Amino acid sequence: SASKPKKTTQLKQMLTSNNLEFLMEAHNGLSAKIVEEAGFKGIWGSGLSISASLGVRDSNEASYTQVLEVLEYMSDATTIPILLDGDTGYGNFNNARRLVTKLEQRGVAGVCMEDKTFPKTNSLLDGRAQPLADIEEFSGKIRACKDTQKDADFCVVARVEAFIAGWPLEEALRRAEAYHKAGADAVLIHSKKKDPSDIEAFMKAWNNRAPVVIVPTNYYTTPTDRFRELGISTIIWANHNMRTAISSMQATTKQIFQDQSLKNVETKIATVKEVFRLQNDQELTKAEDKYLPKEK
Amino acid sequence: SASKPKKTTQLKQMLTSNNLEFLMEAHNGLSAKIVEEAGFKGIWGSGLSISASLGVRDSNEASYTQVLEVLEYMSDATTIPILLDGDTGYGNFNNARRLVTKLEQRGVAGVCMEDKTFPKTNSLLDGRAQPLADIEEFSGKIRACKDTQKDADFCVVARVEAFIAGWPLEEALRRAEAYHKAGADAVLIHSKKKDPSDIEAFMKAWNNRAPVVIVPTNYYTTPTDRFRELGISTIIWANHNMRTAISSMQATTKQIFQDQSLKNVETKIATVKEVFRLQNDQELTKAEDKYLPKEK
Amino acid sequence: SASKPKKTTQLKQMLTSNNLEFLMEAHNGLSAKIVEEAGFKGIWGSGLSISASLGVRDSNEASYTQVLEVLEYMSDATTIPILLDGDTGYGNFNNARRLVTKLEQRGVAGVCMEDKTFPKTNSLLDGRAQPLADIEEFSGKIRACKDTQKDADFCVVARVEAFIAGWPLEEALRRAEAYHKAGADAVLIHSKKKDPSDIEAFMKAWNNRAPVVIVPTNYYTTPTDRFRELGISTIIWANHNMRTAISSMQATTKQIFQDQSLKNVETKIATVKEVFRLQNDQELTKAEDKYLPKEK
Amino acid sequence: SASKPKKTTQLKQMLTSNNLEFLMEAHNGLSAKIVEEAGFKGIWGSGLSISASLGVRDSNEASYTQVLEVLEYMSDATTIPILLDGDTGYGNFNNARRLVTKLEQRGVAGVCMEDKTFPKTNSLLDGRAQPLADIEEFSGKIRACKDTQKDADFCVVARVEAFIAGWPLEEALRRAEAYHKAGADAVLIHSKKKDPSDIEAFMKAWNNRAPVVIVPTNYYTTPTDRFRELGISTIIWANHNMRTAISSMQATTKQIFQDQSLKNVETKIATVKEVFRLQNDQELTKAEDKYLPKEK
Ligand SMILES: [Mg+2]
Ligand SMILES: [Mg+2]
Ligand SMILES: [Mg+2]
Ligand SMILES: [Mg+2]
Repeated sequence: SASKPKKTTQLKQMLTSNNLEFLMEAHNGLSAKIVEEAGFKGIWGSGLSISASLGVRDSNEASYTQVLEVLEYMSDATTIPILLDGDTGYGNFNNARRLVTKLEQRGVAGVCMEDKTFPKTNSLLDGRAQPLADIEEFSGKIRACKDTQKDADFCVVARVEAFIAGWPLEEALRRAEAYHKAGADAVLIHSKKKDPSDIEAFMKAWNNRAPVVIVPTNYYTTPTDRFRELGISTIIWANHNMRTAISSMQATTKQIFQDQSLKNVETKIATVKEVFRLQNDQELTKAEDKYLPKEK
Repeated sequence: SASKPKKTTQLKQMLTSNNLEFLMEAHNGLSAKIVEEAGFKGIWGSGLSISASLGVRDSNEASYTQVLEVLEYMSDATTIPILLDGDTGYGNFNNARRLVTKLEQRGVAGVCMEDKTFPKTNSLLDGRAQPLADIEEFSGKIRACKDTQKDADFCVVARVEAFIAGWPLEEALRRAEAYHKAGADAVLIHSKKKDPSDIEAFMKAWNNRAPVVIVPTNYYTTPTDRFRELGISTIIWANHNMRTAISSMQATTKQIFQDQSLKNVETKIATVKEVFRLQNDQELTKAEDKYLPKEK
Repeated sequence: SASKPKKTTQLKQMLTSNNLEFLMEAHNGLSAKIVEEAGFKGIWGSGLSISASLGVRDSNEASYTQVLEVLEYMSDATTIPILLDGDTGYGNFNNARRLVTKLEQRGVAGVCMEDKTFPKTNSLLDGRAQPLADIEEFSGKIRACKDTQKDADFCVVARVEAFIAGWPLEEALRRAEAYHKAGADAVLIHSKKKDPSDIEAFMKAWNNRAPVVIVPTNYYTTPTDRFRELGISTIIWANHNMRTAISSMQATTKQIFQDQSLKNVETKIATVKEVFRLQNDQELTKAEDKYLPKEK
Repeated sequence: SASKPKKTTQLKQMLTSNNLEFLMEAHNGLSAKIVEEAGFKGIWGSGLSISASLGVRDSNEASYTQVLEVLEYMSDATTIPILLDGDTGYGNFNNARRLVTKLEQRGVAGVCMEDKTFPKTNSLLDGRAQPLADIEEFSGKIRACKDTQKDADFCVVARVEAFIAGWPLEEALRRAEAYHKAGADAVLIHSKKKDPSDIEAFMKAWNNRAPVVIVPTNYYTTPTDRFRELGISTIIWANHNMRTAISSMQATTKQIFQDQSLKNVETKIATVKEVFRLQNDQELTKAEDKYLPKEK
């Protein structure tokens, strides 16, 4: 790992490479490590997953420092880059640029900010108002973040919520262009349609002016090769670790409750030894040998 | 829920009832809510699971205030009592009694403390020294906690690690008796044998002087009725939500990585709507109707 | 102290009593204790002082949980009520009501919220825009807070920034009335004039509909009896502990720097023994005697 | 500041220079900034002052992450190096080395650790047991910290408590030598005598094997030139900002309480404008001009 580029550089390379790249969701140190061990090159620090796992709502109920603490655990547990779902930056440009500083200190490689207002509402919630930020205000936020970062490779991704809020392609393009001019390293075009038509329309018109990131949670049936053809830079698998954790915990908890026993569960779940391995307990054993006095 | 007893009272009743009761592990707000929804009457705030999910080791790498923050999320998300695995109390009697105050403020119903030294080592780790606390010192810690609690029903459980550390029954009994005299509401007798012989021997000699709690992680094949016969008060299913989350996240992450697609995963995991339900999003929608100005 | 009313009740009584009452600023556990020892009946948890002492700006740079942690130290160190300067509630009604829950858990007696937008700007900063909140939106926030509190005596004070933002008396009255109807336990009328004319005009028109709190930082030359005549409920001395700490630390630091010695400083500052006394070290000594094993 | 060396390098140079250097205590972002503005080249993050200002005792009542948060504010507010009073490292070698990682992330330049046991007792408290750490155990802790730091100039200072605990010179030398061999960048020799005899005896025997740091809180009458002659590397003025803040806040609070008025206080304390200046409010004004949309 001595020869591996910095996490920021790794993320920047993913965004700018000609290959389609993938970020997999994690929401705590454990899931982050699992993502790395599976072979993924980067991690998506999902706002929905982090809030859901903490037990709060994806409406900025957790403070930005509480989210930051989750990110610190995730970053400490892994060697691949993390792109944080930074919502709206937790306030105005000043809150957003402070976040960038704090993320850099903790080894987080980049942040994605969306052009909505604080406190945010999850984009996939039906029947909710999704007020967009003023373009100039949000562009100023992106500029402030880019001016603040100390590491030139730290990535700021601007998330365009125009489609989510019911606006046509023109508004999405206008915003993407403004954020690109403001310095965003990539734009994330979000859509909650079941098909990729929003993304296709955007990509046709966008003409590769800057890397584009997508989140196919709702249009997951589209073959990935279609996104390759369209020239997408990076796909985010946005919340699936948290969702699989939910279904498995619900099933396991129900089974133990009904059985009043572990017998039907024990062989289906990770062993305690596997937990210790994931915690890298072996390193501590070696360190104890090295740094603790020998028992006399 | 208006007529439900306080969480502390609920836990006290579980410990002192004549029925065998069960506490199910949780490690964040999400898993805590899942435990409550499954029908369990109480939650075990596992040190191993909390540390593993954060991405650190079960060796007091997370500070006591970091653990406390996890507990606050868990307590806020649920209406059933939580018994925290409080390790050694994170220091001496003064640290332990401060913890009690902080737990009471956050609505945590009780704490279990073990007679080892800070920083602790997980009891199931092989080949590690498991130095026990001085009996008098640990008894003073229990007394300090009991003297500190403001709510008379807050529960302090004393965990006896004598068997874990390789001592015979006499040592376990001597310690259980001392901690009982010091005011512990129950004793937790820990064993890492594959069979229940430690527990059986203890229960025969103990003669029901105080409620006994057990953690059958290693001797899980013993039928639960055997523990009923022995007069056990409460069984802790100690880490199975975290372990099932691990195996499911590993499988799901691997599948998505291999497929470069969500298609084989989507139908097997909780829906996004289910995530919103677990976050109690409906309450927020209603509250927005009630407290936000109507769109004009 | 067993017979003392709850902190919330103490604060409620201060706000509703016929006497003019005083809240003195504190910004950490130490200054809070000093305020109590001086004889004050209540503490003002100043946003300006807390942010300044942390080293950040009074523009919601510290997250609400970071502020909460300061308040927890202050509350733990004292037995008199604290009214938190809660700025705008750190977001919308949902953020504000969550804050109320968190404050109640930590023994804070009340919160003051101001009708501005997040992130806030300090009211005494010259030449800054001071955009006011929509009246209906802010009234909804107050209602949400009052509906959320569990302790009937927890106090929510609504701070009217109309004068600060350059609006005339009518706007101040309209807002005060709306917030009073929304359930505020008192209104805080803020003014940055050097004379009390804003306050006098308001009090004449207000006619004692609800308790009024003032902050005479800028109009400090007005005799306190004048505020008694006007029927003010409570005066906040808003930031003077932090300001005296600044001037004394600047002087002491400069002296030591110049002298390269402590000789001109030692006798003018609190002794180390006094520090230990303020930390209540004596209680710990007694507790050690009670709970630690005797040295053998 | 572009040409200024890193904070770690600055501290390393202070410790290794041939001049007598000075570190001045600070305990929050505000006092840290005051120390820098006075001209000091470095800051002492005092455990006593930090705990006292928070409102807790110097007995590891605040968790290491709570202390870390104070340090982060201090580091963010200043450009000169901070040496943290890291007590015993908050546990064993593993806790200590984790602390080093966290301090490096936050831009803290070094940590001082003392050879006592967790939780610690303040060295100046009379009549308390001051149990020393096992030499081999503490040396292992120092080695672990030095092996963990990523920045070669991060400083680990080993504090020798032998004199505090009543041991003779030989023990102090034996320990200083062991910690020096373990890799400590400097040793801090602590003494609570009113005269410098402990320090003099040590310096004579030590013969400049490694830089020596002292804390003349109790022997403050010794002329500083005497320490120059002895070859001391660095003097720590350990708690005087907190102590001057106490006396000034006590006086100001008392005055306001008695007067029920600010009139006798206003002209003696820092102005509100000075508070804004210390918060660097001007930078925010400029940034608002740069990043916020113009009012239309
Ligand atoms: Mg999100
Ligand atoms: Mg445990
Ligand atoms: Mg304020
Ligand atoms: Mg100290």
